[in-house]
Amino acid sequence: MRKEITLDCPATVANLVCGFDILGMALQDPCDRITMRLRDEPGILITHTDSYDLPTEPEKNVAGAALLDLTAALPGPAGFELEITKNIKPGSGLGSSAASAAGAVVAANKLLGEPFSRHDLVRFAMAGEKVASGVKHADNITPCILGGVTLIRSIFPLDIVSLGAPPLYVTVVHPQIEVRTSDARQILRKEVLLKNAIRQWGNIAGLVAGLLQGDYDLIGRSLEDVIIEPVRSILIPGFDEVKSGSREAGALGGGISGSGPSIFMLSKTSNTAHEVARLMAGVYQRIGIDYKTYVTTLRQEPL
Amino acid sequence: MRKEITLDCPATVANLVCGFDILGMALQDPCDRITMRLRDEPGILITHTDSYDLPTEPEKNVAGAALLDLTAALPGPAGFELEITKNIKPGSGLGSSAASAAGAVVAANKLLGEPFSRHDLVRFAMAGEKVASGVKHADNITPCILGGVTLIRSIFPLDIVSLGAPPLYVTVVHPQIEVRTSDARQILRKEVLLKNAIRQWGNIAGLVAGLLQGDYDLIGRSLEDVIIEPVRSILIPGFDEVKSGSREAGALGGGISGSGPSIFMLSKTSNTAHEVARLMAGVYQRIGIDYKTYVTTLRQEPL
Repeated sequence: MRKEITLDCPATVANLVCGFDILGMALQDPCDRITMRLRDEPGILITHTDSYDLPTEPEKNVAGAALLDLTAALPGPAGFELEITKNIKPGSGLGSSAASAAGAVVAANKLLGEPFSRHDLVRFAMAGEKVASGVKHADNITPCILGGVTLIRSIFPLDIVSLGAPPLYVTVVHPQIEVRTSDARQILRKEVLLKNAIRQWGNIAGLVAGLLQGDYDLIGRSLEDVIIEPVRSILIPGFDEVKSGSREAGALGGGISGSGPSIFMLSKTSNTAHEVARLMAGVYQRIGIDYKTYVTTLRQEPL
Repeated sequence: MRKEITLDCPATVANLVCGFDILGMALQDPCDRITMRLRDEPGILITHTDSYDLPTEPEKNVAGAALLDLTAALPGPAGFELEITKNIKPGSGLGSSAASAAGAVVAANKLLGEPFSRHDLVRFAMAGEKVASGVKHADNITPCILGGVTLIRSIFPLDIVSLGAPPLYVTVVHPQIEVRTSDARQILRKEVLLKNAIRQWGNIAGLVAGLLQGDYDLIGRSLEDVIIEPVRSILIPGFDEVKSGSREAGALGGGISGSGPSIFMLSKTSNTAHEVARLMAGVYQRIGIDYKTYVTTLRQEPL
């Protein structure tokens, strides 16, 4: 049995425009780095080697809370020492907390000789997500652990489906403003028009079919959200300009990553993805908001 | 160029439980039979060889209205003579009007040397559907023309996607009661809870993935409708008993066909499909409602 392991835990894009609360996708970059060691005595020790000043008490730390949930499922006591270097900025909408929670439980499972299924690991990591946002959601955790594009068909009971997908380039811009997940959730209406719901599920069906059939045009046509985006995009300055400009530059489409403020765009080619990044940079330079861009790809491998 | 053609135009199941207004599937049986001849003089002559007493004036007949729409797109005048034998009972919820409308335009297109795309034909046939239900919908027409399972991602603009599907047995029961499409539509609420919409689009994504990946279990788990079925099933006596009994008998799942009153169930094997038919028959014998059952398969071939 190994005593130490280091994992690079990927950023993820939840929702994928029309798939609110059900779809997510893993990115090749950015990644948090987690190094974990088994300890002889029980307990969880967490150290951060970054400047985000995140809590290190296990109950208040997403990785710690996830590990506590995993530990409770073990037959006996266990101890872990955990060093986390976060490169995915908390609050970016790129699954920062999911990367920590997922990385911690996957690392622990590997060190313990893989006693748990991926399904179990998603459940444990969800306990970590609850610390971060108050809600047990899985749409970042699942693609982080499984790779690729994933569907949460149902959360209670948990039903996870891996969706095949063709190669995709992903451009992300993270405007350095704060959008709280809880705020982004509260501004949503509790009721939606049936005709909009129908339009949305047509797009979801189209997106899933486009991904599985490798039909880039269909993917592009289906990346439309008539329910969540019109409300949430108001919280993100420059959103409309980024979106329309990216489409003009040849992107298949895209939208808010998770609950924002990051915006992602999918492209078929590396050239388009870089062109989109230049456009995004231009928008935020003009508006005068600090930003960070990433040009990366869909990550197909599991954690 | 041929002067006469005879087509068997299949019944179809719209909605497929969770895919309200967007999904549909063609059946091998029952089929209407349409024989069409080109005439030397313009105009549309319609004869019925069945006992349903449907209107024969082209403007009031679904096949006629569809043909008028097709004729308007031709460069010059055209004449058609049409003999229709309906085996799909009007008002059964099995796409009876779609079979007539789709059959007429496909037959005309073949006789004319195929000047129109399938996309065009769906549009023409939608004019026929409008005569039947007052609404231009395409979720029966599209699978009737294309075969297999089809997705209407968007109706304006029309975006049609053929979804691959594994072999499926289909059992249908048609209790001989009347449910008008317009009534079935009016009892629906105009607003739905966001949380129910999310559950629904999780199921739609699961169903599309299950069909494309040939995952029968996933298809079964996804055949759940939390929005339309709870309201519409009240109009169909015996519905709950048929549904729960069919699942117990081994069916993957199923629900209301279109707007009812027919109920369909999908099965992996012929044995289960026949067992489900016996169960359906038993339910309606006990309730004392006349019924008709069909045991058939998903039809993969286009019209």
